[in-house]
Amino acid sequence: MKNNLYYPQVSLSDKEIFAEIKKEREVIGYYSLPYVDTTVLKTRLDDLNFPQKQIAIIGIGGSTLGTYAIYNFMKYNKQHNKCLKKELFFFESTDPVNLNGTLAQLNLNDTLFIVISKSGTTIETISIFKYLMSIVKIDKSNLLIITEDDSKLNTFARANEINYFDIPKNVGGRFSVLSNVGLVPLYLAGFDIDELLKGAKKSSDSFFDKKKLFKHLLKKARTYYEFKDVYNMNAIFSYSQLLEGFNKWYVQLWGESLGKVDINNTNQGLTPIGLLGPVDQHSFLQLIVEGQRDKTVTFIKIKDFKDNTKIAPISLEGLEELDYVNNLNFKELINLQADATIASVKELKKDIPIDIIEIEEISEFEIGKLLFYYELLTSIVGKFLRINTYDQPGVEGGKIILKGMLKNK
Amino acid sequence: MKNNLYYPQVSLSDKEIFAEIKKEREVIGYYSLPYVDTTVLKTRLDDLNFPQKQIAIIGIGGSTLGTYAIYNFMKYNKQHNKCLKKELFFFESTDPVNLNGTLAQLNLNDTLFIVISKSGTTIETISIFKYLMSIVKIDKSNLLIITEDDSKLNTFARANEINYFDIPKNVGGRFSVLSNVGLVPLYLAGFDIDELLKGAKKSSDSFFDKKKLFKHLLKKARTYYEFKDVYNMNAIFSYSQLLEGFNKWYVQLWGESLGKVDINNTNQGLTPIGLLGPVDQHSFLQLIVEGQRDKTVTFIKIKDFKDNTKIAPISLEGLEELDYVNNLNFKELINLQADATIASVKELKKDIPIDIIEIEEISEFEIGKLLFYYELLTSIVGKFLRINTYDQPGVEGGKIILKGMLKNK
Repeated sequence: MKNNLYYPQVSLSDKEIFAEIKKEREVIGYYSLPYVDTTVLKTRLDDLNFPQKQIAIIGIGGSTLGTYAIYNFMKYNKQHNKCLKKELFFFESTDPVNLNGTLAQLNLNDTLFIVISKSGTTIETISIFKYLMSIVKIDKSNLLIITEDDSKLNTFARANEINYFDIPKNVGGRFSVLSNVGLVPLYLAGFDIDELLKGAKKSSDSFFDKKKLFKHLLKKARTYYEFKDVYNMNAIFSYSQLLEGFNKWYVQLWGESLGKVDINNTNQGLTPIGLLGPVDQHSFLQLIVEGQRDKTVTFIKIKDFKDNTKIAPISLEGLEELDYVNNLNFKELINLQADATIASVKELKKDIPIDIIEIEEISEFEIGKLLFYYELLTSIVGKFLRINTYDQPGVEGGKIILKGMLKNK
Repeated sequence: MKNNLYYPQVSLSDKEIFAEIKKEREVIGYYSLPYVDTTVLKTRLDDLNFPQKQIAIIGIGGSTLGTYAIYNFMKYNKQHNKCLKKELFFFESTDPVNLNGTLAQLNLNDTLFIVISKSGTTIETISIFKYLMSIVKIDKSNLLIITEDDSKLNTFARANEINYFDIPKNVGGRFSVLSNVGLVPLYLAGFDIDELLKGAKKSSDSFFDKKKLFKHLLKKARTYYEFKDVYNMNAIFSYSQLLEGFNKWYVQLWGESLGKVDINNTNQGLTPIGLLGPVDQHSFLQLIVEGQRDKTVTFIKIKDFKDNTKIAPISLEGLEELDYVNNLNFKELINLQADATIASVKELKKDIPIDIIEIEEISEFEIGKLLFYYELLTSIVGKFLRINTYDQPGVEGGKIILKGMLKNK
């Protein structure tokens, strides 16, 4: 008997996946970012000594989401501890009303502009930059540019003696948060970028040195892969408003990396969903609990908010039954809310796959660790799916059509 | 031959659906909100004559999302036209860092507090309220309460002579935006609530008088229903940052209403996803274009932003190739971006079901129309799914567990 198999490519073993990731590590740039020495960068930024109190970041997608995630996570803490050196504002959208509304919050004469575009020709970024140039004088005293070394935006920077910072060619936008894209604005804003990288390195070492994260990440990625047709969505349920930016960053990373045609020419992709607790207990939770079984859920908790704001021991007439919250710290309440939600999903509905991530505290180290953990996870899932995790060919069609429309105008 | 069918309940015809919706209209309260006369409400609020410049809304989920959607949509316009009477701030989360960060933006002595809770015993709302009471003097001069007439929060209001406003029993939280929940804060902030209701009435009449929306909504809902196992997600891709709040409102409305166990005891539910263009062209779009074919996509455009902010005709050295955007209004650019994305999905990928909603302008009338359109659509899809659209039994489990945890502390 003869039976020739003309079958599609099947999945790889853990060992093969790890070997491929290690091979990939030599060419894909983001893997090495946690190991970069920041001394030169910091000295250079210190020497530039920009006096402005506000920073306007002009960029979109991968040029802003990571910075926004970290900034958003720690802004209030930095303000509270009086170590926020500059406030960040993000100019992403071509929505004119939003553009002017954001502008109205700025003192343009006390603003440092940072234009970030990997390709250098991002239409939103350049359009907004041109508009800003028409309403405020922008030159080397209030402008920085972050782009690829040989981009056309870099030509502009060099021609006008604007200080510029490189984005390595082999670091994709959505994996660029630990490159100059994130480090430059965050350092200027008063963030400890070394702690950020140290956290990322912790995740990286743990995986590549075959410590704790090695088996963990492979198992997690394999589960997403093997159940992808049952659970085509992955929701992150973050119990802190401070992780709103992280959720958005995750949505881009996951969606744009994994939504691809695979080597068997099949549309692949796990849909990312970002949720915030406890707010979304009053919104999306009902769908998780009673809706179709089509999602995995990752709960993220912050172990210690290091904030002792307390619910005052006031008894309100008629509402005495709620007095059991009196004297509770909010940081305890929010984590109990997380625990109760987790318990209700885990114990009452055993058919919803969940996992729980606990962040120790609100620090650069912890967010660096979390970001790199998710970058690694994305890369590994990408390997299982047999796709190119690092390109985004699907968005080119729209860009070409837009260019045609604009040239015809 | 005999063949007895022990089959689950099958779907209803359009005629049956319409009959059921009309029947439902007599008991479910939200249907009648567009027809309410606001004269008494406006006079009462005018007479109260609160002098504060800021409003802190303390509420969560359905108590805030609709108000936030409308406020977010029009805030910049109102500010620009100097008719924003009071600025709104939302206190939803028990995250202590976020709570204090939001508080720091307020002048507490110039703030009107509005506590909103349908049940009156929402744990987040009462906890935050108690905290606020411990840091600022709150009494009838700077407090309003919006709750059900016989709730325990209402007992508190009456005992302390606080002005209160009713939420009708038969109006669910996520359908309550056009009740006092939204009307009171929005009127105080300087919004035209009659135009809002007029817009909602337009959608309502069009459907119930069997005009344009009648066939349209039934067709749309039936499509979602019949393809629910293929397309288990519905993404709204709104081309304006001003619709960020609307997206969130939609996610709650759709998710919490449709994520249910149906009469055949099966888990149902379409997962809502909110996207913003052009920002998410640099994030989620790749997943739509090349990912699994598991989503329908609704594009929302604003036809006329009524803003003439222009891209300055500046030619940047090296970037001359982008000069074709020069002199373009941003409002044109963003809509061309929408059109190009739509064309790329519609023409290049014919297997992604899309629809396009065009909003005429940024006005109360238009947002009222849109909100009610989505409420109707949700109700009709709920009928097709044979579920109870208006309850949320899935979140009770977590609440009971939390209460147990808190009482044990």
